[in-house]
Amino acid sequence: MEKKIAVLPGDGIGPEIIKGAIDVLQVIEAKFDHSFEYNYANIGGSAFDEEGTPLSDKTIALCKSSDAIMLGAVGGPKWDALPVSSRPEQGLLRIRKELNLFANLRPTKYFPSLAPASPLRQEVIENVDLMMVRELTGGIYFGTPSERTTIGGKAGAVDTLLYTKEEINLVLKKAFEIAKTRSKKVTSVDKANVLESSRLWRECATEMAVQYPDVKLEHMLVDNAAMQLISNPRQFDVVVTENMFGDILSDEASVLTGSLGMLASASISEAGPSLYEPIHGSAPDIAGQNIANPLATILSAAMMLRISFEMEQEAQLIENAVDAVLNKGYRTKDILSADTTLLTTSQMVEQVKAEM
Amino acid sequence: MEKKIAVLPGDGIGPEIIKGAIDVLQVIEAKFDHSFEYNYANIGGSAFDEEGTPLSDKTIALCKSSDAIMLGAVGGPKWDALPVSSRPEQGLLRIRKELNLFANLRPTKYFPSLAPASPLRQEVIENVDLMMVRELTGGIYFGTPSERTTIGGKAGAVDTLLYTKEEINLVLKKAFEIAKTRSKKVTSVDKANVLESSRLWRECATEMAVQYPDVKLEHMLVDNAAMQLISNPRQFDVVVTENMFGDILSDEASVLTGSLGMLASASISEAGPSLYEPIHGSAPDIAGQNIANPLATILSAAMMLRISFEMEQEAQLIENAVDAVLNKGYRTKDILSADTTLLTTSQMVEQVKAEM
Ligand SMILES: CC(C)[C@H](C(=O)O)[C@@H](O)C(=O)O
Ligand SMILES: CC(C)[C@H](C(=O)O)[C@@H](O)C(=O)O
Repeated sequence: MEKKIAVLPGDGIGPEIIKGAIDVLQVIEAKFDHSFEYNYANIGGSAFDEEGTPLSDKTIALCKSSDAIMLGAVGGPKWDALPVSSRPEQGLLRIRKELNLFANLRPTKYFPSLAPASPLRQEVIENVDLMMVRELTGGIYFGTPSERTTIGGKAGAVDTLLYTKEEINLVLKKAFEIAKTRSKKVTSVDKANVLESSRLWRECATEMAVQYPDVKLEHMLVDNAAMQLISNPRQFDVVVTENMFGDILSDEASVLTGSLGMLASASISEAGPSLYEPIHGSAPDIAGQNIANPLATILSAAMMLRISFEMEQEAQLIENAVDAVLNKGYRTKDILSADTTLLTTSQMVEQVKAEM
Repeated sequence: MEKKIAVLPGDGIGPEIIKGAIDVLQVIEAKFDHSFEYNYANIGGSAFDEEGTPLSDKTIALCKSSDAIMLGAVGGPKWDALPVSSRPEQGLLRIRKELNLFANLRPTKYFPSLAPASPLRQEVIENVDLMMVRELTGGIYFGTPSERTTIGGKAGAVDTLLYTKEEINLVLKKAFEIAKTRSKKVTSVDKANVLESSRLWRECATEMAVQYPDVKLEHMLVDNAAMQLISNPRQFDVVVTENMFGDILSDEASVLTGSLGMLASASISEAGPSLYEPIHGSAPDIAGQNIANPLATILSAAMMLRISFEMEQEAQLIENAVDAVLNKGYRTKDILSADTTLLTTSQMVEQVKAEM
């Protein structure tokens, strides 16, 4: 098959880890006789430096004409003093909106060999296998007004949390569809005892569940979910929630399995190209040192193969290679533990390629 | 000293644990020659059953004329089907607003003897000692509009996150003042890369810090805070944040030390009476069985003595008694671990009294 991939390395360690993922994708091309066209463009702080904006129309146009997008990471202290609208993360927010990336999918899975790196006890995280589905283009991230204001004559600020039923149903449907292919349980997280938008969310989830009689729906308040994620994470299969709650809970979940440097994500659209990126940041402090962990980006490439290109076998080849490398005790610095072997970024990529 | 205490047992295990705390307070009265007047009133589901509302004007009037308020817990499945405005938790929201309880203080502290009950590894939680300061009467909990609406012709819902500088400064000041009496570090949590109210919050915190040169201020994004709380909780001293973030993060923090059934809280007002309650819920499933853990409520009573009545010695007597009882290996069911002795609620109260 022929596919066009927009490649946005971004800032910090972005270019190094993206290179690792592309190297691995080239092995896939050769082994399965696919042909991927890689077109590079800017995003984030480096885009601001080169094009004066964290996301140019040129980058957007390239993304829109591609079959999928691979992103590294954005941000760094270099751009901290810029006005909000020029900051690297605005590139992220804008690309989500421009490409209608309505749902962010983040799998969190127990890797036995990484359990020693988790802050949680092994018996708590054993066999954890959950999928976070976060609404990504609505809610308080994009509602207006979001501005300085005066309230009863006093200076203040306002933000607006807004959802249409349509937006809610779109992401809920995705969550139920995913649950059908997994353990058939959806936990819908909201704050229905306080927020009107959460009460609407809960109604939509309850209605949607009728269409999925084989999937068990459970409602959970966000404060309780923040507790349950640590105290009993095995209870979860698919967790679906709105944008801001999803931002908080998916980062919390990412610490569980001790494998932050290993976690992939997909930000999907209904009809257009979807975007794949590691969940970790741009780690400017270690950029350019060839010590970053490329596995999250490599596993994001596997998600791209599976979700956007329907190349299940190819995706599994990568995932199995990563498993094998870990089982042999190879580690980058972030996941190093007793009795394992330290590798550089490029050495890790070579090991994954060798296993394939 | 003579003090008037409004006692609101509430629902579920509320009455049992409140009884335990009052028993302990009576020991304090006798030992220190104080005289506390206990006036009981309804709140929550039981208030709805008796007075048709989760918080009656009568209860509010009693609270306003008291020196402090002791609360058990509210809520239960019995009242789940009621319309929102009649539900037990509306009693909580209303009492906060009516009494201007602008800050919720939740200490989370490492108890060596409870470490086995934590989902986190001992080396992660060792010596954790943090104080969460949550804004409690503003933000998205109380902003309007909060209603069903149509957006571009589509059915939806809206909530409003609103803060004045005055509200923000009030809770920030409290956090800085508390930090002065502790390890002199404030972590202010926001989402300044997305929310305008968070950018205002961050400005206020930065300005406030100038008045407290001996306190170190650090800003942290809420998603990062959700990760750091589990991966490196020892870094925190005082954590201050807005209402909704505080709801989520303080519940997350409460799991850290494995002592959910032990955690006290204070909801304080500037001039009027403050309110003290355990952070756990009403646990309707175990209500009336004499197995609930009364220690969080007893420790909340100690907070009341210290904060509202400035009875430091009396507060310490209770806290030391609780420590001693735990060190002797006495446990209620929720914190039972290997080689400890199971007690009922009333037996636990007796042990605490005996230690005093
Ligand atoms: C950078 C920031 C705007 C972004 C978000 O909050 O969505 C990030 O935290 C994420 O989760 O991708
Ligand atoms: C019951 C609910 C409204 C309340 C809140 O969200 O504030 C509770 O979760 C709390 O933290 O006291």
